[in-house]
Amino acid sequence: MPRQRADRPEPLFTAWTTGDIHGIGPEIILKSFSETLGTEARPVAVGSAESLRSCNSTLGLDVEIAVFDSFDALEHSPPPEGVLPVVSVAEPSGPMLPGVVSAQAGRIAMKAVETAGELCIGGRVRAMVTAPIHKEAVALAGYRNTGHTDYLSKRCGGIEPTMFFYDAPSRLAVALATIHVPLREVPQLVRSMDLRRRIEGLLESLRVDFGIAEPRLAVLGLNPHASDGGVMGDEEQNIIAPCIRELAAAGAVEGPFPADGFFGAGRYRDFDAVLAMYHDQGLLPFKVLAFETGVNVTLGLPLVRTSPDHGTGFDIAGRGCASHASFSQAARLAETIADNRIRHALAG
Amino acid sequence: MPRQRADRPEPLFTAWTTGDIHGIGPEIILKSFSETLGTEARPVAVGSAESLRSCNSTLGLDVEIAVFDSFDALEHSPPPEGVLPVVSVAEPSGPMLPGVVSAQAGRIAMKAVETAGELCIGGRVRAMVTAPIHKEAVALAGYRNTGHTDYLSKRCGGIEPTMFFYDAPSRLAVALATIHVPLREVPQLVRSMDLRRRIEGLLESLRVDFGIAEPRLAVLGLNPHASDGGVMGDEEQNIIAPCIRELAAAGAVEGPFPADGFFGAGRYRDFDAVLAMYHDQGLLPFKVLAFETGVNVTLGLPLVRTSPDHGTGFDIAGRGCASHASFSQAARLAETIADNRIRHALAG
Repeated sequence: MPRQRADRPEPLFTAWTTGDIHGIGPEIILKSFSETLGTEARPVAVGSAESLRSCNSTLGLDVEIAVFDSFDALEHSPPPEGVLPVVSVAEPSGPMLPGVVSAQAGRIAMKAVETAGELCIGGRVRAMVTAPIHKEAVALAGYRNTGHTDYLSKRCGGIEPTMFFYDAPSRLAVALATIHVPLREVPQLVRSMDLRRRIEGLLESLRVDFGIAEPRLAVLGLNPHASDGGVMGDEEQNIIAPCIRELAAAGAVEGPFPADGFFGAGRYRDFDAVLAMYHDQGLLPFKVLAFETGVNVTLGLPLVRTSPDHGTGFDIAGRGCASHASFSQAARLAETIADNRIRHALAG
Repeated sequence: MPRQRADRPEPLFTAWTTGDIHGIGPEIILKSFSETLGTEARPVAVGSAESLRSCNSTLGLDVEIAVFDSFDALEHSPPPEGVLPVVSVAEPSGPMLPGVVSAQAGRIAMKAVETAGELCIGGRVRAMVTAPIHKEAVALAGYRNTGHTDYLSKRCGGIEPTMFFYDAPSRLAVALATIHVPLREVPQLVRSMDLRRRIEGLLESLRVDFGIAEPRLAVLGLNPHASDGGVMGDEEQNIIAPCIRELAAAGAVEGPFPADGFFGAGRYRDFDAVLAMYHDQGLLPFKVLAFETGVNVTLGLPLVRTSPDHGTGFDIAGRGCASHASFSQAARLAETIADNRIRHALAG
C-alpha cells in the first residue's frame, strides 16, 4: 500500500547505524540492504563509510554505496535506488580490525547513534535501526552510558522506554517490566514501579505502533507458579493481580500467569504480547523460540528504534558468515511502525 | 541387557502411585502399563484399585488388573505378565468425581505415596514413579507437607534432594539450585547454600544414576547476562564463579553462563546437565523444549523416584485424552536409574 502523506512531506529515509565497525554491523547492513530493493524502504547508513567499503571488498558483496558528509548533502542529491547512501560521521584512522575491542570503534559507533538519534528527533528520518555496539569499546571511548536505550531515553527527556522483543515468524512478542538490574532488585522494583502506567503504555504501543485495535496482553507472575495463590511470594496478590483487575475493564489484560507453563503450553499464541517481570523470564523463552529472527524494539519513545536481537559477533566478524535475518527483520519492523505512527497521526 | 543380580535377590517390581484419583493419574498408569509389555519392567500400581477399574470401564481401556491388599500378598502370588498388579491402600467411598478437589482423594493419594516410599526405603521395590497429586486436596486431607519431594526428603532424614528435569528425546537435563521459594529469597539462598556440595552431589548422580563416567555440567548465572562482569549483581563473581573454579579440576564444570543466550544458542547440547539457580530459569526453557516428554527426578535420595512433568490435569480428567508420554518416560527412566544404581553397587 502506498504511504499516506500528511501536509508536510513525510521523511523518506530510515537511518541504519553501522554499530561497532569491528563487529558484524557493516556486513549485516550490506546484506540487509539488498533485501530492501524493490520495496518502499529507503535506508541510509549512518556511521563509517570506510567500514562498508572494506566489508564490500573483503567479502565480495558488491553493494554500490554513495558517501555523503552530511544528511543535508544526501537530501540535496539522493542517489538512485539500488545505491546505498552513507552519511559518514567518523572514519577509522587505520585498517579494520575484526573482533578487536577499541576506543576508536566505540567512538564511531556512538557518533553514529547520536547522529541518527538527532535525525529521528528532528523528524528528518522515519526511524532508526541500530547495528550492535560493544559496551566495553564504548566505555573505552569515554562514554558513561554504554547502551542505545539508555542514551536515547536520556536524550528524549528521561522517558523510561519499554524493551520489547518481537519475532515475526512465530508472532511472539515479549515486553520486560525490569531490564538490566541485579535479580535481587527485581521484586522491589516490581513493587515500587507504576505497573499500571507501564501496562497502559504497552497497550498504547500495541495499538499505535503495531496497529492492533484491541490488543490482548498476558502478564506473567513474578514468583514460581505465579506464587500458587500466595504460597511462594505475595507480589502476585498484592501488586500484579490487583493491577490486572483494574485494567481488565479497559482492555484484554490477563494474568498473572505462571511463566513456565504459559510458554510451555504455547499460550503466548493467544495474546498479542506478553509482559515478563524480569530479563531472563522474558528472554529465556524468547531466545529459545526466536533466536535467529527475533528483534528488539524500544517502545514508548517519540522516535522509532529497532535493532537485531544479537551482539557484535566479534567471534565471526570479517568472515562473511553472519546472518542478517534479525537485522533485516528489525529494518522491516521499523518501516511498519513508522507507517503505523503516520497513519495514526493522520487518523487522529 | 539382562539385569545383574547381587547375592540377595534384587527387587522385581517398581511402584507406580495412582496420584489424585480425580485427575488423570489412573488413565496414564493404565496407558503406560501397556507400553511395558515385553520389557523387563514390572510395575505395581499402589493406591486405589477402584480408580483403575473405573477408568478401565469408563474409557474402555481393557487393561487386566489383579488387586492385592498388601505387597506381601502380591509377592506371595504374583499375577502373570500382562496383568497389572494393584496394591490397594485406600478406596473411595463413592463414585469417581473427575476434576473435583476432595479431601478423600488427597488422603488416598498421600497413603499411596507413603506406602510406595516405605517399599522403596525397605528395598522391596526398585523405584517409585508418582502420578500427580493435587496440593489443595492433600491440604484438605490435613497434611502439612503437600508435595512428594518434601515428604520423601523428611522421610529420608532431612536429606535435601535436587529437583532434576530430564527429557530423553532432546537429551536436555536441568537441575534446580532453589525450587519453590519466592523469587526475592533466591539471591540470599544462592549466597548461603553450600553450592559446591550441591554441584558435587549432582555430578555424583550423573555418574551413578545416569551412568555417565565423566559428566559435563553447565552452571547458569543468577543475574541477567550472568551480571556482565559484575555490572548487574555480584553473585557470579563472589559465589558461583569461585565455586566453579574450585570444581573445574575435579570434572568438567563450566559457567556461569548467561541463561538466555545459553539456551537460545542450544549450548545445553554440549553438556550432560545444566544447573539453574531458580525455578523459572530452569523450567522456562525446559517446558518450551520438552513439554510432552519431560520428566522429573528427585536426585540425592537413597530411593529412586521419578514423576511426569505435569499436574493432575483436572480439566481433562475422565475424557480419555490425557497423554501418557511423560509418565511413560518417567517409568522408563526409573528403571534405568534403578539398573544403574545396582550396577554401581556391584562394581563398587
